[in-house]
Amino acid sequence: MKTLDAAARGVYLITVTPFTDSGALDLASTDRMVDFCLDKGVSGLTVLGIMGEAPKLTAEESRVFVRQVLARVAGRVPVVVGVSAPGFAPMRELTESVMALGASGVMVAPPSTVRTDDQIAAYFEMVNETFSKIGTGGAAVPWVLQDHPVATGVQMTAGVITRVLKNSPSCVMLKHEDCPGLNKLAAIRAASDKSEIRHVSILCGNGGGLFLPEELSRGADGAMTGFAYPEMMVDVCRAHESGHVERAHDLFDAYLPLARYEQQQGIGLAVRKHLLAMRGVIASAMARRPAPKLSAADVADIERLVRRQDRRLAELGAA
Amino acid sequence: MKTLDAAARGVYLITVTPFTDSGALDLASTDRMVDFCLDKGVSGLTVLGIMGEAPKLTAEESRVFVRQVLARVAGRVPVVVGVSAPGFAPMRELTESVMALGASGVMVAPPSTVRTDDQIAAYFEMVNETFSKIGTGGAAVPWVLQDHPVATGVQMTAGVITRVLKNSPSCVMLKHEDCPGLNKLAAIRAASDKSEIRHVSILCGNGGGLFLPEELSRGADGAMTGFAYPEMMVDVCRAHESGHVERAHDLFDAYLPLARYEQQQGIGLAVRKHLLAMRGVIASAMARRPAPKLSAADVADIERLVRRQDRRLAELGAA
Amino acid sequence: MKTLDAAARGVYLITVTPFTDSGALDLASTDRMVDFCLDKGVSGLTVLGIMGEAPKLTAEESRVFVRQVLARVAGRVPVVVGVSAPGFAPMRELTESVMALGASGVMVAPPSTVRTDDQIAAYFEMVNETFSKIGTGGAAVPWVLQDHPVATGVQMTAGVITRVLKNSPSCVMLKHEDCPGLNKLAAIRAASDKSEIRHVSILCGNGGGLFLPEELSRGADGAMTGFAYPEMMVDVCRAHESGHVERAHDLFDAYLPLARYEQQQGIGLAVRKHLLAMRGVIASAMARRPAPKLSAADVADIERLVRRQDRRLAELGAA
Amino acid sequence: MKTLDAAARGVYLITVTPFTDSGALDLASTDRMVDFCLDKGVSGLTVLGIMGEAPKLTAEESRVFVRQVLARVAGRVPVVVGVSAPGFAPMRELTESVMALGASGVMVAPPSTVRTDDQIAAYFEMVNETFSKIGTGGAAVPWVLQDHPVATGVQMTAGVITRVLKNSPSCVMLKHEDCPGLNKLAAIRAASDKSEIRHVSILCGNGGGLFLPEELSRGADGAMTGFAYPEMMVDVCRAHESGHVERAHDLFDAYLPLARYEQQQGIGLAVRKHLLAMRGVIASAMARRPAPKLSAADVADIERLVRRQDRRLAELGAA
Repeated sequence: MKTLDAAARGVYLITVTPFTDSGALDLASTDRMVDFCLDKGVSGLTVLGIMGEAPKLTAEESRVFVRQVLARVAGRVPVVVGVSAPGFAPMRELTESVMALGASGVMVAPPSTVRTDDQIAAYFEMVNETFSKIGTGGAAVPWVLQDHPVATGVQMTAGVITRVLKNSPSCVMLKHEDCPGLNKLAAIRAASDKSEIRHVSILCGNGGGLFLPEELSRGADGAMTGFAYPEMMVDVCRAHESGHVERAHDLFDAYLPLARYEQQQGIGLAVRKHLLAMRGVIASAMARRPAPKLSAADVADIERLVRRQDRRLAELGAA
Repeated sequence: MKTLDAAARGVYLITVTPFTDSGALDLASTDRMVDFCLDKGVSGLTVLGIMGEAPKLTAEESRVFVRQVLARVAGRVPVVVGVSAPGFAPMRELTESVMALGASGVMVAPPSTVRTDDQIAAYFEMVNETFSKIGTGGAAVPWVLQDHPVATGVQMTAGVITRVLKNSPSCVMLKHEDCPGLNKLAAIRAASDKSEIRHVSILCGNGGGLFLPEELSRGADGAMTGFAYPEMMVDVCRAHESGHVERAHDLFDAYLPLARYEQQQGIGLAVRKHLLAMRGVIASAMARRPAPKLSAADVADIERLVRRQDRRLAELGAA
Repeated sequence: MKTLDAAARGVYLITVTPFTDSGALDLASTDRMVDFCLDKGVSGLTVLGIMGEAPKLTAEESRVFVRQVLARVAGRVPVVVGVSAPGFAPMRELTESVMALGASGVMVAPPSTVRTDDQIAAYFEMVNETFSKIGTGGAAVPWVLQDHPVATGVQMTAGVITRVLKNSPSCVMLKHEDCPGLNKLAAIRAASDKSEIRHVSILCGNGGGLFLPEELSRGADGAMTGFAYPEMMVDVCRAHESGHVERAHDLFDAYLPLARYEQQQGIGLAVRKHLLAMRGVIASAMARRPAPKLSAADVADIERLVRRQDRRLAELGAA
Repeated sequence: MKTLDAAARGVYLITVTPFTDSGALDLASTDRMVDFCLDKGVSGLTVLGIMGEAPKLTAEESRVFVRQVLARVAGRVPVVVGVSAPGFAPMRELTESVMALGASGVMVAPPSTVRTDDQIAAYFEMVNETFSKIGTGGAAVPWVLQDHPVATGVQMTAGVITRVLKNSPSCVMLKHEDCPGLNKLAAIRAASDKSEIRHVSILCGNGGGLFLPEELSRGADGAMTGFAYPEMMVDVCRAHESGHVERAHDLFDAYLPLARYEQQQGIGLAVRKHLLAMRGVIASAMARRPAPKLSAADVADIERLVRRQDRRLAELGAA
């Protein structure tokens, strides 16, 4: 098992959870999906997030799925598991369970009921305490702070986030998806550059990476998000890291029309699963109910966007 | 096991979940709480609601607690279990589990993501289908539709509720807690009185029954809510049923100052557990984190209100 | 004109705006309402609040109404005007206009868009600056900070409120209506008692004073809210001030069943106007659309509650 | 004055409101902005929308600004004015005022308080009635129904929208900005194609037109939104109308990276005003408080994106 630590960089892909047409977990597709992601060069995987339909799984299904992913990854990259829960007892139970299976760390977003700065700080102190009691042999569970106001309704300032980081030694990563919050990202990065806080990894999640080139320029270490073309994020991060900023933008722009389409509220998951099925990664685009469905016109849109994307990538010599 | 059906009347008490001072499930207090409720004359119990701290329990703790309640009730009154969940697989799993343990029915509130009339109707069709597949020997699981806009953000008109009831033959009860929605309650009752829809039980939940006398006058069959003095609801319902409406109001008014105090957003659960501990029902007022705490001044308020309530009840010959 | 200052005590009644049956401003009823409030012993009036249907008035109607109230009050008590607005230019314009007419001060709630502690503090710095530029001869406009999370969605901690008060020398009053936030109220009062902040008047607004006796015990200086029986708040405050705390509770409890009914979300305004018309204060219970309407059963409820209230007050020798 | 009617097509640009550096209305920039929009080929203008900082203007400033725009447009294209208001009296007052000045029609979004289908339908019946009483000589004011759930929180199904359209003969246009709601758009268009409802113009507003090519393919008649490069929307609409769908996508894709950046929540208005100042359209990028500010890094992002956009447009022979 790979450890998750504050030096993490690159792309941690938020995976889907593959189902068969009848809605059962599809473990063969799960294996193929893991292989696909690693082939494309991701640095890590994140499972059981919102786009992973985590709340639609039974507890047993969650364990089966995580076990399958971990077995297939076989320690090649870290695997992070989303464990946000309305109470600390179920959060601890899930965390113990996935860490025992071999996960590298867990991720937590605040519940929508915390609102003020003090409530946010107090909540994450309880989170940190929950995780500090789990590590075997004294080590606390490394965890990711997820800042996702569109989903949670919780607005965290740079000041509150640095306060949480100071209080939480085992928090090693920030998943930044305040939309897009470029200046907030820069402020947090500046705080660690000036040693006001220790360094943590900052991976960005805005809508499939819709601001990835700009976020990298502001000091992000990579992306933690989902998109049916993870090679976009991988290639953009690599070009950026090697100093080819314009090339990073060129690649990004080529994928942007489709990425935008996949990030639509509501039907985004259906688009992503459709594309992954089209690419042969998963056997079925099935999502559990309540779930959006694509119309014939949606499929036509997607097909046009893929054709155009292929053409543009070819022009860029990147196909 | 008592069946939950559309003829249900009286008080279904929403119970708390007792913990020891260290936060473990307190099964001895659970037994005492069941005895206390039955002594006070409730017609049923509802467990694992929001005020039952359901989201703070592990799956195993939920099962243990439900099993204990059912064992102690021993079939004397129906027991309803809250099974609202963000996905149908966990909802079905929990429902199967508690029905197998001997529960009489389950209760579901809509998720905050359903908003339009069509979304509400579609959601409950999926709920109904989920429950129709569980009943052993072909019988569907009887279920309660919880209309609680303050908690869910979902506004259901009388029209949508009757639409759901028409589509859901196994929905036998409406938990009405639109605050207070007296005219909506009356409209739904009128629809069944005029045979536009079949009769379902309507139990009211507004803030510990803060509108109970008026709700009974509009045709409610009783209350499903929590209050550290369940005898208030029981006595008000009985007085009302026997035609003593002014007496029902007298009793209600005597408890109202404390009921109002217990219904405060935020610290309400702490007030309720404090009172139940004071009455000797549960051993500890402990609530799992994140949880409100009472200040010394809060406790002084409560003590004054209880003294005044005792005095007023004595004046009414009801102590 | 009476000045509004930090020593304000007693009841500042939130008035309705009377209309004729055809929906026009009813200035004769406005005069009667002012007389009624002063007869009942209020210490001040607050106009153009949410329950005053302020957003349903044209700018000219607002000015006409405020002018009429001020003329009738004739300087006997301070009159506060609600000036919350989405922008500072209209806020300043309305404030200049009502101060020129003779208002004693203005009241501002934060817009729902401010969320974090820093946003709240920054917003009220702009408010304070807006008002500091208006006073003639150098005096800033005295203003009231309205803390009303149910209406605004903005959660302000005691810490943020004291920060605002430190930054805003012309803020002389806090309208506390965090529901009910007794411990927050106590914390703010303690801060001024310990001279950490200067003293400001704290008037409470929770739902027609539904926690008034407890709020007075925690250090509130009175109430700023609406109820068709303002004598309730006046008498409770007087009894409390003269040390008769149990008497204050007795009076409060007598009015509580009706106060609770009048505080219903949605139809509360209709109940209040119905009662004021019943008492002969206003000629018509008309509210501008969109507006709730009372059913015959609602009216029957109200009539019963008034009869019971009269009887109980007679028992207490307070009728 | 041009009339607004159901045959409207093309781009109705949502304009900003130009201010001087000191925050006063800048009427010279207003004239330049009108000229700029007409030069770029827009079919209409929409003023006093959210991005027009309408709530930050005094009533008198609103009138001055609208008068200036109308004078400069001089009847060449229709001008629509946003008149959403929390009450019907101020809505009618503003509408009368701007129609008297020569506006072509008005636009209304529902308040966040309406939630159920019935509430939405009832609200717009009142809107329609408000506008039907204004038209001089018997003609009702043509109005635009704005469907913008991200801003209002109001979810309107295709069914509710067709119900509103049936009830409101003077509603001539739908501003579709449910994000992106392609299938909903198609359903409403299909209803008029099948004559279930009369034809209304459907203009799309999603985030500066971020789904414009797809929306046009689903039957939209054009766009009503803001972007510092209105020629994007104009050229995409023209290419699409003349059957050059791939060309429409090519143009769209060239502008997409910058359009995406300008659509960021929070700082979007600052980006738009910065770009308009950079292009020489307005003299100052000043926005009234509370307003976002661009950092140096934001400006660097913008400059890079403009350079890249210019290059890409040149490659496409469209610069």
